[in-house]
This record gives sequence, C-alpha cells and structure tokens, in this order.
Amino acid sequence: MAADEEVNISIERLSADLRELGDIGRGEDGGLYRMAFTAADMEGKAWLEAKMKEAGLETSRDGACNVIGRMEGEESDLPILVIGSHIDTVPCAGILDGTLGVLSGLECLRALHAAGKKPKRSIELIAFSDEEGRFGGMIGSQSFAGQVTPDLIHHASDLDGIKLSDAMNEHGLDVWQTLQARRDPATLGAYLELHIEQGPVLSEMQEQVGVVEVITGLFKWSVTLSGEPNHAGTTPMGMRRDAFMGVADFAHELPRLIDENGSDKSRATIGRVELMPGSPNTVPGEARFSIDVRDTDETVMIELSTALKKALVAIARRRGLHFNYDVESWIHPVDCDPELVEQVDLAAKDSGVRYRRMESGAAHDAQIIAKVCPVVMIFVPSKDGKSHSPAEWTAYDDIEAGAKVMLKSIERLAF
Amino acid sequence: MAADEEVNISIERLSADLRELGDIGRGEDGGLYRMAFTAADMEGKAWLEAKMKEAGLETSRDGACNVIGRMEGEESDLPILVIGSHIDTVPCAGILDGTLGVLSGLECLRALHAAGKKPKRSIELIAFSDEEGRFGGMIGSQSFAGQVTPDLIHHASDLDGIKLSDAMNEHGLDVWQTLQARRDPATLGAYLELHIEQGPVLSEMQEQVGVVEVITGLFKWSVTLSGEPNHAGTTPMGMRRDAFMGVADFAHELPRLIDENGSDKSRATIGRVELMPGSPNTVPGEARFSIDVRDTDETVMIELSTALKKALVAIARRRGLHFNYDVESWIHPVDCDPELVEQVDLAAKDSGVRYRRMESGAAHDAQIIAKVCPVVMIFVPSKDGKSHSPAEWTAYDDIEAGAKVMLKSIERLAF
Repeated sequence: MAADEEVNISIERLSADLRELGDIGRGEDGGLYRMAFTAADMEGKAWLEAKMKEAGLETSRDGACNVIGRMEGEESDLPILVIGSHIDTVPCAGILDGTLGVLSGLECLRALHAAGKKPKRSIELIAFSDEEGRFGGMIGSQSFAGQVTPDLIHHASDLDGIKLSDAMNEHGLDVWQTLQARRDPATLGAYLELHIEQGPVLSEMQEQVGVVEVITGLFKWSVTLSGEPNHAGTTPMGMRRDAFMGVADFAHELPRLIDENGSDKSRATIGRVELMPGSPNTVPGEARFSIDVRDTDETVMIELSTALKKALVAIARRRGLHFNYDVESWIHPVDCDPELVEQVDLAAKDSGVRYRRMESGAAHDAQIIAKVCPVVMIFVPSKDGKSHSPAEWTAYDDIEAGAKVMLKSIERLAF
Repeated sequence: MAADEEVNISIERLSADLRELGDIGRGEDGGLYRMAFTAADMEGKAWLEAKMKEAGLETSRDGACNVIGRMEGEESDLPILVIGSHIDTVPCAGILDGTLGVLSGLECLRALHAAGKKPKRSIELIAFSDEEGRFGGMIGSQSFAGQVTPDLIHHASDLDGIKLSDAMNEHGLDVWQTLQARRDPATLGAYLELHIEQGPVLSEMQEQVGVVEVITGLFKWSVTLSGEPNHAGTTPMGMRRDAFMGVADFAHELPRLIDENGSDKSRATIGRVELMPGSPNTVPGEARFSIDVRDTDETVMIELSTALKKALVAIARRRGLHFNYDVESWIHPVDCDPELVEQVDLAAKDSGVRYRRMESGAAHDAQIIAKVCPVVMIFVPSKDGKSHSPAEWTAYDDIEAGAKVMLKSIERLAF
C-alpha cells in the first residue's frame, strides 16, 4: 500500500471493546471467570462473532468451537495469514491476556475494512478455545494444528472432574468434531499473535512492544527426597537425615547451576514444597517439590537437566537421603520464523514505537501453530509483570503501539 | 540397706506387664491408640490399679484421674518420693514411651514389697493423665503441680473439638476436680521419672542408661516471608522476589547460626513449609514456615533467637522480602536437681550398667513437676532414635538396666 492510503487503528474503539468483553464473566471479586466452555465463555464467543460481523468479516466456528472471522483476499488460493489468540481466561483473571490479541486483531481488520482495503491473501482472525487449560490447555490450537487425538479428547476433564465432552455437549457441541478442525498446512501462510508479555521485562526496560524471536522450552520435575523423620528435640544435628535441608541445599545451588550451565534466558523455579510429616517438632522425613526449568535453547535445557541431576545426587549422598524424580513435562523451545520476525521488526520500526526483540517465557497458542506454519508474536508490556490476575494491566499508549505494529505487520504480510 | 538384703527386679515380670498393657488400645495397624480419656486409656488405668494392688500398693485416683499407688514409709511425715510417668499414648504409638517408666516403677515397688522392705519415706508411683497432649499435654502433672486454671480446663479440647470436660464426663469424672489435685510442695521430697530417650544418642553411643541433668528449653516461631508471586517463565531470575529462596537461605544459615551462637546441645528444625500459591509454574509469593530451636541453656536460647532474627532481617533485605514472625512458644530449660543427679549417677555406678549423663531433648512430666519439687530422670535407649511409632523399641537388657538403676535410686532416695 502507498503511504497516502494510510489506515489507522482507533484506541477508543479497541478500549471500548476491551471493556465490553471484560464485563462478560466478571465475578463479584472483580476478576474475570470466563473459563473455556462455561456459559460466560460461550457468551464471549457470541459477542465476538457479532463484533466480527459488524467489522465486515465472514464468521464461522470450527469443530473445536474456535471462532473465526475471515477477510477474503484477492488471491483466494494463496496460503492465508492467521491472526489470533484466545478469549478464555483462568479463574479470577484480568481483561487483557489473550483477549487483547484477539481484539487488537479485530480492530486492525475493522480499520482495514472501513478503509475499503482488500488484502492479497485472505486473513483469518481466530479466537482459539481453551488456551488457559481448563481441559488441559490449547485445545483449540491443537485441534487446528491436527494435534488432538481421540484419546486426548476422551480423557480431557477439568479439576472438578467435568469431562470436556460433557462441557461441550452442554452447549450443543460434539467433542468428536474437534478432530475435524484440522487445517491443511499447505493452506496456512503465517500466524501472527499479539499477547501481553506476562513478565516484567518490557515494563522495566520502558519499551512499548516486544518482537518475539523464540518461545521458551521447559522441563518440569516432581522430586522426592527421603530421609528420616525424627524428634526435633532429641535428635542431634549431626545425626539427622533432614529431607528439607536437602531441598534448601538444592535451592541454594540453582544460581550456580544456571551460571555454569545455563544462559541469561534460563529460569529455575521451586514453586511447590511439601514436607512429611509437616509437624514443627519433627525433622522432615520426606520432602516433595517441583522444579520448573526454562530456556530458549534445547541444548542448554539438556545441560541444565544433567547438572541438576548431578547436584541432586551429590546432595542426597552428602545428607544421607534417597531421591527420585518424575519428569512431568519436557516442552521444546519454538523459534519464531526469522523472516516473519524481520517483517514485524520493520513494522515496529515503521510505527515509531519503542521496541525490542525478546523471548517469550510463557507458553502460547503460537507454540502449537508453529507445528503447521511459520509463526511470530508481538508482546506489549505487563504492568509490574502481572498476569492471570485482576491487577493485570497495560497502558493504553502501549496497547495502541502494539495494535499499530500489528496493523503494519498485517499490511506487510497479507497485502 | 545392707548388701546382704539385695532386692532384684525381674525383667520377666516387667516384660509380661509391658505386653499385657501393650494389648490395651491396640489398633488394627499394630499401633497403640490409648489417647487420654479414651475407653482404652481408662481400661489401662484400671489394669494398672489392679496391678498396683497385687504389688501391695495402696491405690487411689486424684482429681485429674492420675492413678496413684502408695507404699507407706516408716516416717510418714517426711516429704515423699514420687516416681512416675504416663501411660496415655499418641495415636499409633509403641508400647514403651512413658508406660515403661510407670511399669518399671511398678516392678521396683513390687520387688521391694515382695522382699518385705519398708522405706523410710513414703513412695508414690503415679501415672499422670494426658502427658501426650490430646487435650494440650501434661494435664495430670500440671494439676498435680497446681498449674491448671479454670480457664485452661474450660478451653482444653482435642483436635476433633471434643472438650476435656466432656471426655472426662463420659467416664463419670468432673473436670473441675483437676483443680483439687494440687499437692502441697512441702509434702514432696523428690520426683524420679524413667522414660525412653526418644533420640539416637544412647543407642549410637552404645550406652544402656542416661542420667538426665537438664531438660531442654525451646522456642518455636511461625515465620512468614512475603515477596511477589510471578510467572515462572516470564520473570527473569534477577527480577524475582522469591519467598521460598528466602526460606532456603535461612535453612542454609542454620548451621552457621548454631556454630556462632549455640552449643553442642542446640537444635534447630524447619519442620513445616507452606508456599503460596504453591503452583509449580509460579514463583512463590509467600512462604510460611515453622522454626523450632532448642538448647539446655536459656542464655544460649536468647542469643540464638537474636541471631536468627538478624539473619531473617538480612535475608529479607537481600531478597526484597517482608517478614514477620509469631512466637508460638518459649519454654524454659529445666535443670534436674544436682543432688538427685548425683544419687542416680551413683545408683548407675552401683548397678554396673553402661551409662552417661545427658540432656533430655523432649518435654516430660518432670519438667512440670520441677516447679514444685526437685526432679531427676533416667533414660533408656530408643532403637534408631524412634518413638511415637510402633517401631519404637528398647532391648530387654537395656530395659532391665534402666529398671535396676531405678531400683537402686529408690533405695538411695527413700530408704
């Protein structure tokens, strides 16, 4: 497009949309409760569909109840540009998270449509179902990418034991249709997702936009250290096999383990600790804890996992403990497509916003879509790094900056 | 008494008693469930009373349902010798614990009675009620020492919310009578208690008997460290305020804190840790933990508590955390009476057993009785340091050694 035809997004319209959708599923505590396939989620999907129609998009839902708004391109056999994210929430959420990505996409397409622009390749704006994991997470994007199986949909259930099939059935949906939602990869050209960062980096660095180059991989272990439960008064310090002291040793080693084997992208978190018997006057005989380790480079992840194991072996030997661990998950890092990253970077430069390239520390639909087409992500700052909380927020200026970069990216990728 | 009149205890009779009483309150899992004022506890008391009668003692129960067997002395206005412990148990207990002290005392008095010996001062063998704490602990010895108050007995209840008054009432007992159980300190000459060590020291040192010089004091804090709950993936290590890392730092400092401010009698235990939100992929925003610190010297306890506070302040500052702590308890160390310790030491020497002087790391009725008369304790080894468990055990040889020392001590103190 020539500069004289410049299209602009409207932060007023976008913020009005955020507020409207932010009222659907609001709890008495001010938090959003729009978990996947609840009545609020379905009401949100219907609201979105109506907004898509108003914006001139052709709407549909696929078998995973992903809500799709399509802007037909001039060359309808070109692989399409997909933009999207999700509008389901965790319990007691804020109003942004994935919703901001979907509504920014909506605003971009609405602005383009209002300006009478028709893209070369078709564009689909998609709100994917259950990103947040009521039924395990990323059900919508997994269906889209052909990753769901009969086994997965049969066993998927929420924390209350409600099965995905029953939750979908309540809204007249058939869980088996999720298997029909798969797209032919040959029809997919690129996937672009805007999301809040959910971390403090952009905010600390006073940047408005992040261009995501890589989505972090992670491994998660559940570790048990076993010693001997003893009387806290009668057992001399030197005669103890204190399982908790083993955990403390391990926690203390983490900075060294990262310095020696990790990168500046490495993260290690002990988020859960449970002591047995858990009584103040008993030396802990057993400690169970979680360790969550992330890096953007799988080689580094492998090195970290080896180093962590060695440290645990040494600590167990030193303290007279036994240990075992279960690998709860190993998720590969996903690179964004270098060509797409370059295009979004140029779009950010064109938009005159303060931006930086960065990694995503959290998981996103983009990670799943990457299995079937090139992906890229745009981040906007999270105030104080907060997300999954009513305290989540991004300044309107930064939301506007993100939406502008998204619009310029769409123009670069689909026109 | 002259050497030619030597009285001997019978390990056969004592072990038969242990087995008989050990069948009262036995659960299906093999553990003893003879908690205070349960039907099993009352059955145990009745059994004990019958045994005391058979042994020639004059039995009674005081207002706290302490079971008393009295051997009248020649000079009935001399302050008496009290020997005792308790026969109530924790849930799923072993058969020894305090019961061994009561039955060893029974065996000693039975042997003396059978040999026609009459002490100079009267001896009372007492099984104190609720030492183990179903209703708070040491109810019997506190009543005996005049430490209970209407407030205490009114509020005492067990973990299921059953009030002490109702539990006693079920057996025709009036809780207000516990206030009548107080003895005039002028009538009490000495208190001697045999108990299992409940720790590994005697067993590790291959000693048969411990002569207790001091009962450890302790303080217990409930500490809360508060940081910020953040996403484990998106929050760089340097931008975290991880409450658990504060606990790990503190745990790691404990050996140094004891080396610098404590003694070889010092113990410090973190037995309970709770993290909020406690999710593997969230940096812990809050950590609540218990710290239990013991020493035999109150000055050392005070120094340790000051040093621990300084360490917490420094860790909180370094990690950007807030902290507060509640003092859950501060129990003074109790010295055994030096003259009584000397007499028991001589008794142990006379008996030809392997023994050592030591401290008690656990709390006992003796600690309470010390408020009204001089006390001393005899320990026997706990196999692997275990107690409050069906795995609790002491070799018969060592039980015999302990009972012998008890008998010789009684001869020294009451004859």
